[in-house]
Amino acid sequence: MALIVQKFGGTSVADPDRMRAVAEHVAFTKRHGNDVVVVVSAMGKTTDNLISLAAQVSNTRSGREMDMLLTTGERMSAALVCMAISDLGIDAVSFTGSQVGIITDNKHGKAKIIEVKGDRVREALAQGKVCVVAGFQGVSNENEITTLGRGASDLTASALAQALNADACEIYTDVTGVFTADPRIVPQARKLAHVNFDEMLEMAGAGSKVLALRSVEFARNHNVPLHVRSSFTWEPGTWVSSKEPGMEEPIVSGVVTDTSEAKVTVIGVPDRPGISAALFEPLADANVNVDMIVQNTSKEGTTDISFTMPKADMAVAEQIVARVAAEIGAVGVNHNASISKISLVGAGMKTSPGIAAKMFRVLADNGVNIEMISTSTIRISVVCSAADLETAARCLHTAFGLDSGQAYAAPLPERK
Amino acid sequence: MALIVQKFGGTSVADPDRMRAVAEHVAFTKRHGNDVVVVVSAMGKTTDNLISLAAQVSNTRSGREMDMLLTTGERMSAALVCMAISDLGIDAVSFTGSQVGIITDNKHGKAKIIEVKGDRVREALAQGKVCVVAGFQGVSNENEITTLGRGASDLTASALAQALNADACEIYTDVTGVFTADPRIVPQARKLAHVNFDEMLEMAGAGSKVLALRSVEFARNHNVPLHVRSSFTWEPGTWVSSKEPGMEEPIVSGVVTDTSEAKVTVIGVPDRPGISAALFEPLADANVNVDMIVQNTSKEGTTDISFTMPKADMAVAEQIVARVAAEIGAVGVNHNASISKISLVGAGMKTSPGIAAKMFRVLADNGVNIEMISTSTIRISVVCSAADLETAARCLHTAFGLDSGQAYAAPLPERK
Repeated sequence: MALIVQKFGGTSVADPDRMRAVAEHVAFTKRHGNDVVVVVSAMGKTTDNLISLAAQVSNTRSGREMDMLLTTGERMSAALVCMAISDLGIDAVSFTGSQVGIITDNKHGKAKIIEVKGDRVREALAQGKVCVVAGFQGVSNENEITTLGRGASDLTASALAQALNADACEIYTDVTGVFTADPRIVPQARKLAHVNFDEMLEMAGAGSKVLALRSVEFARNHNVPLHVRSSFTWEPGTWVSSKEPGMEEPIVSGVVTDTSEAKVTVIGVPDRPGISAALFEPLADANVNVDMIVQNTSKEGTTDISFTMPKADMAVAEQIVARVAAEIGAVGVNHNASISKISLVGAGMKTSPGIAAKMFRVLADNGVNIEMISTSTIRISVVCSAADLETAARCLHTAFGLDSGQAYAAPLPERK
Repeated sequence: MALIVQKFGGTSVADPDRMRAVAEHVAFTKRHGNDVVVVVSAMGKTTDNLISLAAQVSNTRSGREMDMLLTTGERMSAALVCMAISDLGIDAVSFTGSQVGIITDNKHGKAKIIEVKGDRVREALAQGKVCVVAGFQGVSNENEITTLGRGASDLTASALAQALNADACEIYTDVTGVFTADPRIVPQARKLAHVNFDEMLEMAGAGSKVLALRSVEFARNHNVPLHVRSSFTWEPGTWVSSKEPGMEEPIVSGVVTDTSEAKVTVIGVPDRPGISAALFEPLADANVNVDMIVQNTSKEGTTDISFTMPKADMAVAEQIVARVAAEIGAVGVNHNASISKISLVGAGMKTSPGIAAKMFRVLADNGVNIEMISTSTIRISVVCSAADLETAARCLHTAFGLDSGQAYAAPLPERK
């Protein structure tokens, strides 16, 4: 008998019909002889609605009270899905994060998991019950209700799977898996049967919304294989695991696009030590998530510093950057919200030279101007104009052999 | 320095504007040197909406899961009101029923309070904080989330007031206090400055919606004076306490009307022992709240049994009554949903003879036909046609001197 953790996201439990469909699937899994632990997110836009309600009520919104407020969304889903499962003649019981013993630190809004006790889940499973756990939440050692950050129900699922030594952790969502590109931008995009943790991490970091970054980190660090699949079609999706790509695997797994960031350039910065710290420390203190940073070659003792960051943080960042720019004697500040970030990700890239060069050549041939570049061992990201997004994504998808199912293979080394 | 418990009902926290108004009032109370514990209900129709959602998802709806679901409503309100109070520069912290240690038995949906620990509230008050507590809920000794029944946020407030030895327990609602009659039915109705616990109990039992019955019972049993007042006008309302009426107090305090009940008559029941038990035991088992019961004088060895019960339970009751009627060999069953119940309540009634006789005379003079009668020491209730409700309520209100502020006084005993 296998133990399966099944996590259902907000669209999968968006309304009573969807909840009953989820219950049917859980009952199906249970009736096939498996133990099942279900983790649920809040229904549809519930969390956004609660945040907007809080914004209408209050300007301060302490982290503690926001956690008290937001955790109710997942609790509702858990109770409702549990009822729907019971309707099908399956014994089920719902638990809050606190009740299953997801112990966290006290950082409200982005608490880190310290320990998953899971005693009540084990007891209930031993009694043959399906457990439905409210995702996204835990409880601190001081008995305060905490949340693990947006999208962290995936993290709840991986952490439970690890603590309970589950045989599989299935992440149900509104897409059928991880794709070679966003199909709304690149119509030829294909679903991947498998990606490894490092690729998934880079994809999440590059802006892929399929899995939250911290959940992938956790799953990688504790080696919990994830199966990302759809709660609308129930077809097999994409496995995310530690499996390394074989000889025949494509070098590039996918093209990831991201339009959520804006670019800020501080012009004419005096070229002396401590300037970067003066700029990026206050941004970090204000929780502005700076992504790519490029410092241009200096001219006449000054330099330009460009960086990208979420558009959502723009208002906060603008004030800080303006103040710092004045303090350090910079000439001026430019903002550009009309950018897009395009990344190539693939575990095979680390052993294949020339991918970056080919990428820049393909973009140049298609008239796409590159504004910033950043690389890791298995990812290359470029920033270009928002208007170039589709052209860039499609031409790269084609050039790296992702369209056809025929992967791009680096030329064999010449025989000696 | 006084400790004041302030409870705000669903209409008082229905939207962000109302919540901010509540926060202003709490801050005002705190700034005048008082310690304040706030108890909140769910926003507006939240609880009804959650119940309807559950009905769409599931037919079974176990009590445990309904409690898990419904308690989220009060938690949201508590967090939001807490944020609004903090915005005004007052340190505030929200708590669930579980966090303040409202320990209950395990009867989901209508749990009874076993103990109120209140440790975290005492600590927070000692630190100068305002505490905002989610009403309606507790936690069982088995760590299950429980609810205390509909309208039980009043009970949470009285129980906390008692446990903390509060100086006052203010129940804020959408009316300005307890009235001599429902002003929508009797336009001349006046607000009462004071009613005693027994009167309030009878009023609640007779259908007054101002305070929930169990909250009044608790307040009476533990002698917690309540101040019922409006969160829209903030004017002084009605005190509910153990104070006995003085010489000058009116004999009749109010006319209570109730249109939420239906009448069922079982006709031609064989007149032998055990018949009533056969009828009312299965209704009690099905949680049908039978109110008035009248058994008519028997004719030729048979009798008619009439009783009233909530219209909402009609569907459940009909099946049970039809089955029992057949079993006991009754002639037939009548249902009548077009009835109304009118009650006179007044602590002075127990020492004043002739109130019932006068009531029946007044109704007869105004052409109102009485279908059922039930009395307690300080209440007389009659059932009449729903069409007669306004006439009956108004003529009684006038006849017993409630219109003018000049109370009806029984004639002095004749001098010997």
